[in-house]
Amino acid sequence: MDTTDRHIRDALPTVLSGFEELIAIPSISTDPAYAGSVRDASVWVRNRMDGAGLTAEIHETEGHPIVVGRHVAGPDAPTLLVYAHYDVQPADPLDAWRSPPFTLTREGENLVARGAADDKAQVVVQIAAAEAALRTTGLPVNLILVFEGEEEVGSTHLTPFVAEHRDALAADHAIIADSMMFAPDRPSLIFGMRGLAYVEIEVVGSGHDLHSGQYGGAVPNPVHALARIVASFHDPQGRVAVEGFYDSVRDAPREVREGWAAMGYDEAAFQRSAGGAALVGEPGYTTPERLWIRPCLDVNGIVGGYTGPGKKTVLPGRASAKVSCRLVPDQDPHEVTELLRNHVRRHAPAGVDVRVEGYQANPPFRSDPTGPLFQAAGRALADVYGVEPVRVAHGGTLPIARDLAELLTPSVAVLGLALPGANMHAPNEWIPASQVERGMRAMVRVYRELAAEKT
Amino acid sequence: MDTTDRHIRDALPTVLSGFEELIAIPSISTDPAYAGSVRDASVWVRNRMDGAGLTAEIHETEGHPIVVGRHVAGPDAPTLLVYAHYDVQPADPLDAWRSPPFTLTREGENLVARGAADDKAQVVVQIAAAEAALRTTGLPVNLILVFEGEEEVGSTHLTPFVAEHRDALAADHAIIADSMMFAPDRPSLIFGMRGLAYVEIEVVGSGHDLHSGQYGGAVPNPVHALARIVASFHDPQGRVAVEGFYDSVRDAPREVREGWAAMGYDEAAFQRSAGGAALVGEPGYTTPERLWIRPCLDVNGIVGGYTGPGKKTVLPGRASAKVSCRLVPDQDPHEVTELLRNHVRRHAPAGVDVRVEGYQANPPFRSDPTGPLFQAAGRALADVYGVEPVRVAHGGTLPIARDLAELLTPSVAVLGLALPGANMHAPNEWIPASQVERGMRAMVRVYRELAAEKT
Repeated sequence: MDTTDRHIRDALPTVLSGFEELIAIPSISTDPAYAGSVRDASVWVRNRMDGAGLTAEIHETEGHPIVVGRHVAGPDAPTLLVYAHYDVQPADPLDAWRSPPFTLTREGENLVARGAADDKAQVVVQIAAAEAALRTTGLPVNLILVFEGEEEVGSTHLTPFVAEHRDALAADHAIIADSMMFAPDRPSLIFGMRGLAYVEIEVVGSGHDLHSGQYGGAVPNPVHALARIVASFHDPQGRVAVEGFYDSVRDAPREVREGWAAMGYDEAAFQRSAGGAALVGEPGYTTPERLWIRPCLDVNGIVGGYTGPGKKTVLPGRASAKVSCRLVPDQDPHEVTELLRNHVRRHAPAGVDVRVEGYQANPPFRSDPTGPLFQAAGRALADVYGVEPVRVAHGGTLPIARDLAELLTPSVAVLGLALPGANMHAPNEWIPASQVERGMRAMVRVYRELAAEKT
Repeated sequence: MDTTDRHIRDALPTVLSGFEELIAIPSISTDPAYAGSVRDASVWVRNRMDGAGLTAEIHETEGHPIVVGRHVAGPDAPTLLVYAHYDVQPADPLDAWRSPPFTLTREGENLVARGAADDKAQVVVQIAAAEAALRTTGLPVNLILVFEGEEEVGSTHLTPFVAEHRDALAADHAIIADSMMFAPDRPSLIFGMRGLAYVEIEVVGSGHDLHSGQYGGAVPNPVHALARIVASFHDPQGRVAVEGFYDSVRDAPREVREGWAAMGYDEAAFQRSAGGAALVGEPGYTTPERLWIRPCLDVNGIVGGYTGPGKKTVLPGRASAKVSCRLVPDQDPHEVTELLRNHVRRHAPAGVDVRVEGYQANPPFRSDPTGPLFQAAGRALADVYGVEPVRVAHGGTLPIARDLAELLTPSVAVLGLALPGANMHAPNEWIPASQVERGMRAMVRVYRELAAEKT
């Protein structure tokens, strides 16, 4: 164990108590009622960076602030930009949590809380890793930490910020410190993530609830209309039936798919993490292919009429559904939103008004898994975990991955610490406690490997 | 104006202030949290009957109490049983009300509140009419008022109560004092009402919400499955597509349909009351036929996944829909529930668990519109309103109508005071204030006509 690793081990209780503090700030960016807490979290992050020996600054946006921390190693050192986010998803449904969502709670080997896996562990780890290097053998790269508070609402202000500060944020490599490992004890580096097109469909009939006896059979029911629209989104085999949806999809090279076939994807574990439900999806593709290189369409929520306890004989006046598509290269999210709009228009039954509102549009991301960053980070992870990391894609969406690749450097890797089934965006979100220490050790090695590569 | 009508006019302010008191008791029978208020309302009704000079009694049930008030005119007088209910629907959505739902509020000619039309005006009117007769020329019929507190939850305990007290409740005629007039200034007597089969469908995928990026495309989405099931309930033309649904439907005689064609059904007014939405329904039938003599199927509510403000990228773990069918002779609600169950089983996609729970089952009601009760009540209404009442059917469900016809007397009429578009079961429920006085005057005449017919 070298000096830095020893320092990391000794600092661990302090790091975990910081983690606990950050978790306790309910920085829910999707709900305006929590704007104050998001701000509190940004201040916490700035202060923590300061304490770690970084030069830290809060940048205001029209939404939630961006916190930037820096270390300058010198003009000959490579520059690494690390991205993370300090905002979180809502905690509802609250009654499904085994412990209070904003209290970091130990459950066996794991730490449980909203944001534990997505993405506050990374916020804490990335600052503490820099601190450990600075306080021991030194930090041999120019480091720029960019931590935003709007990841869960589409990173609206981050990309303009990066575009505006292209020079100050110029970097040779960028690591997205978010997402998850491929499997327990099997670290991974992610070179592709799906994009997102998110819309809300509203169907209006009478506009207000009617007595189902006095009106039933003679007026349109917007829930029926919405169900017909939703049912039209897929064919009976499970392919998306939105006209033109697959037209610009670029299939992955055969060797990539073959590599995955040999990788030992644990379908049973994935199924267990999904509550044991049967695995269904697009015909002709394996589960990892369905998740990583194939697009999909899901209703995220639907509501109409009376949904309380017991029964109520109303004929709903309106109904709505939130619908999102995960996209792969080369689908364009704005084009897909238009395809959805046209499809809904074509399949809307008579007698109701239908509106489609575009909520979010993020292009997919794909970088080169054989470049120097993937090699350096691969060695670092192999050293800490004792096993070669796998190079995979991921089904989720990180708008910033694609934006960093476009604006700063094509050398972008996503390095996750959470594990599959971490309940991100769901109750009882968790991360193994051991990942905090391992994450710090891995980052310290990434600094060294990148510095060594440059010289 | 005779003595009794004069008394009615003078008593009106007192009657309306009683109405206000009863409205202020939120006797929501569908929500267990309001059980105390339902009881308070039963006590209010009992006390009011006492004050009116009737012999009143609260009968306990395993649910909400039944209040019975009596007047004995003598063995030669005919016996009239009048049914009403003092329970109400929930008031939600609360923010759609223009005035507090449990405060009787005057809006121009109308009185607005939850229960104003359905059915507290009748509770007040029926007691006050008996009182007016008693305090002036006398009440010439044996009168039995039976007011229940469970109409909005399927009248669970009323039928057993009537069956158990068949002798004490023996009557020559029964009036259901609920429902509405055909049109403003056009009183009506209802000889048929639709039945009801109400179920809840639950579709379970993973059982808990998942991250839509990490799972989307590879696991079943219960909202998609539920939408497919709901969409299968109707064919594209608007007929119910549940296998066997129409098999036992008895069509109405041609002369009845022809009478309705000549009646001047105001389709435009109906459409306005439905918020202006286009009128759609089963092909080959007019709007009143679709409502009165044809069965239908409606989703009353649907919910699944995230339904709060903004967006959340979840893949829902479960979804559910409340579904009810309005039934006509000779459909059996239990048989229809089984048809629904079989249909759902046949149309459920792979990968999800589907459960259908039966909530409520009421057979349709139909009596003889040419019998002595319809003649007596017809003359009474014609005298008060100055126009012949119409004999119609109704799309709603009153389980007690069918049960009284089976257990006590086939001579059952439904006499409504509310007007079309009264927002029963919806926000801003209303009744014209003038209907309180007119209702009392009409009932006094019904007593006299029935007594005259007997002698």
